[in-house]
Amino acid sequence: MPAETDTRDRIVKTAMKLFHLQGFHATGIAQVLEKAGINSGSLYYFYPSKEKLLDAVLERYQAVLEPAIVRPVLERVVDPINRVFALLSLYRDNLVRTKCKSGCPIGNLALEVADAMPSARRKIAENFEGWRRAIRQMLDDATNRLPADVDRDRLATFVLTTMEGAVMQARAYASLEPFDASIAMLRDYFDRLLREARAEMQPRSRGGADTAADKGSEGELS
Amino acid sequence: MPAETDTRDRIVKTAMKLFHLQGFHATGIAQVLEKAGINSGSLYYFYPSKEKLLDAVLERYQAVLEPAIVRPVLERVVDPINRVFALLSLYRDNLVRTKCKSGCPIGNLALEVADAMPSARRKIAENFEGWRRAIRQMLDDATNRLPADVDRDRLATFVLTTMEGAVMQARAYASLEPFDASIAMLRDYFDRLLREARAEMQPRSRGGADTAADKGSEGELS
Repeated sequence: MPAETDTRDRIVKTAMKLFHLQGFHATGIAQVLEKAGINSGSLYYFYPSKEKLLDAVLERYQAVLEPAIVRPVLERVVDPINRVFALLSLYRDNLVRTKCKSGCPIGNLALEVADAMPSARRKIAENFEGWRRAIRQMLDDATNRLPADVDRDRLATFVLTTMEGAVMQARAYASLEPFDASIAMLRDYFDRLLREARAEMQPRSRGGADTAADKGSEGELS
Repeated sequence: MPAETDTRDRIVKTAMKLFHLQGFHATGIAQVLEKAGINSGSLYYFYPSKEKLLDAVLERYQAVLEPAIVRPVLERVVDPINRVFALLSLYRDNLVRTKCKSGCPIGNLALEVADAMPSARRKIAENFEGWRRAIRQMLDDATNRLPADVDRDRLATFVLTTMEGAVMQARAYASLEPFDASIAMLRDYFDRLLREARAEMQPRSRGGADTAADKGSEGELS
């Protein structure tokens, strides 16, 4: 990696970490420099302001979403509905790892800086859009296992809504319980949708036993 | 109101507004003083630090939740399920009023300060708990209109999760669409629960017409 690219990379990675742990406003440029081991001149050479650095951080999150988060789930889990819950369980893993701190870096920035910084707001929306699109693809891959009249685009939005609201409460309560409660209710909603789609397809065998394919993702993930 | 109480009240109200509009870290003590028209000495007399002021702000939010937010909904809307959606629609009204800015003041603080300030985190959780309890009461009031096996405590958490995640996306997209999409999916979930409870009660008249009582809250609210 050429020295200039390497320096830029080091600055962005350090800022990602500090913005995530402390927030954007609570993180000073001086702290980014110190943690990245860089002298002041070079930061301003690469990023003339903290806002520009934030833009670079948000672009980096967008670039890593598919290779670092979505693709591993697609490779590990086959069932499209279980993929949705496997993606959600990554956020639970993160809460466990951090003792319910930090949460979703994009969600944090959405509430902290979106109103005041139009450029960051757009990039935050693009990050959400990438996440939502990944979920939408999983829902499309589920084909007729979901009822025909369910709006899959809105359902993808609802999955993101659930993840962000659940992470927020886990942090506020410093407990996994509200996260688990929220995901359990979303799972209950999906289970009802799956049952209804089965009933639509076989109107005469209502109330039959559930197939293994759409029951929880625990087995497949452990 | 005695002068001392009046000054304290003015400081807290100003801080509530500024923390909500700008965030905690982006708001300086000097700005709170200026907007409240108070000299520096008196702020430190009442609140020795910005953290203590934040605690007072969070206590105030807790105190106004029932009289200013929950009670008006209970007085205006009779149907317990419609009450849930009437409460959610207050947050939509706020997004309309602010052009999708500001959002939920408690949610903002949950993501911005909860990790670093244990006292604020506890008070944020207490605010969430008050909101969740109000929803839980509405769900209990719905008695057997919800299926017996649905965990109402978790469902109340899920309603708060939906509100917070939906508000977050509305702010990020600067659009009501993700909010409306999320609430529509929560409504769809509730509609399925209500239908199932009816089916449980009258196992032989499955698929009957919906009653007016549990269809949308628009009519009752407009």
